[in-house]
Amino acid sequence: MDSLKVLKGLEKKRSLSTIEKILAFTTGSVTEILEAYLEGPVEVRTIRQEVAKAGDLAKDLDVEKTDDVNFREVEIIDEEDNVQIYARSWTPIKRLAPAFREDLMKADVPIGKLLAKHKIESRRELLDVKLDDEDRIKRTYNIIRNGEILMRIEEKFEKL
Amino acid sequence: MDSLKVLKGLEKKRSLSTIEKILAFTTGSVTEILEAYLEGPVEVRTIRQEVAKAGDLAKDLDVEKTDDVNFREVEIIDEEDNVQIYARSWTPIKRLAPAFREDLMKADVPIGKLLAKHKIESRRELLDVKLDDEDRIKRTYNIIRNGEILMRIEEKFEKL
Repeated sequence: MDSLKVLKGLEKKRSLSTIEKILAFTTGSVTEILEAYLEGPVEVRTIRQEVAKAGDLAKDLDVEKTDDVNFREVEIIDEEDNVQIYARSWTPIKRLAPAFREDLMKADVPIGKLLAKHKIESRRELLDVKLDDEDRIKRTYNIIRNGEILMRIEEKFEKL
Repeated sequence: MDSLKVLKGLEKKRSLSTIEKILAFTTGSVTEILEAYLEGPVEVRTIRQEVAKAGDLAKDLDVEKTDDVNFREVEIIDEEDNVQIYARSWTPIKRLAPAFREDLMKADVPIGKLLAKHKIESRRELLDVKLDDEDRIKRTYNIIRNGEILMRIEEKFEKL
């Protein structure tokens, strides 16, 4: 993905703030950037959490249709309880170490902090950045580990 | 490192801009963030590049004193040829795959882009963030791969 080209395309539709531009294209932890920007901690509020068969997502995640996938839908909220980011993630269960899996499924912890806590070495591959029908930035990326998709993530940013 | 505590400490000394706060504490690619912020490409200008024995750095890099370390000193410059970041890196040669080593030693390419190009899975561990004697943010971090220090990096940001 040519980030600068995509950024210029987005800015033809509406101008983006500094923090929006950065969050849209970073391949680092969004939580860390958001916390530094807000100068305060953010929290995760889980909306939905479930395990289901990969089904139609199998191809995207490079797993079998019958493989279990953990789906997590969360809001990232600031200290004043404002929703800053809405995020969904899909994680093939078979690629999770037990301790990481437990944290992911039980605790309201942002993904970036989970990766740091479990010292997971990975890289992020940005797939798509666009504006949704409410003019929010919506992006999709994969977290890759051991050459496999550990997690597919989709994020929507409230206008920051 | 408690990033928010360190950030609050820095802001007692001087106020930081949004981009400074983000660059200071991100564990993602600084180049990507800088390019999105500037809305234009940045380039690396190599000041110095040499291979020397680890010596006194052996402990920091967790290698033998007699191991070879690649030292690189660069400026990251924007399209108008302004220096935005000054960076130094130390990389134990024995931890580099030949293709990555060649790119690192021969090409004027930012580290974040090299890691992406070579699909290197890693994590970054922030060691220190402070203001230097010219009031610039100076930070030090390790890039960890296979549980070992692939690279120690020190960056100073021009006031952005």
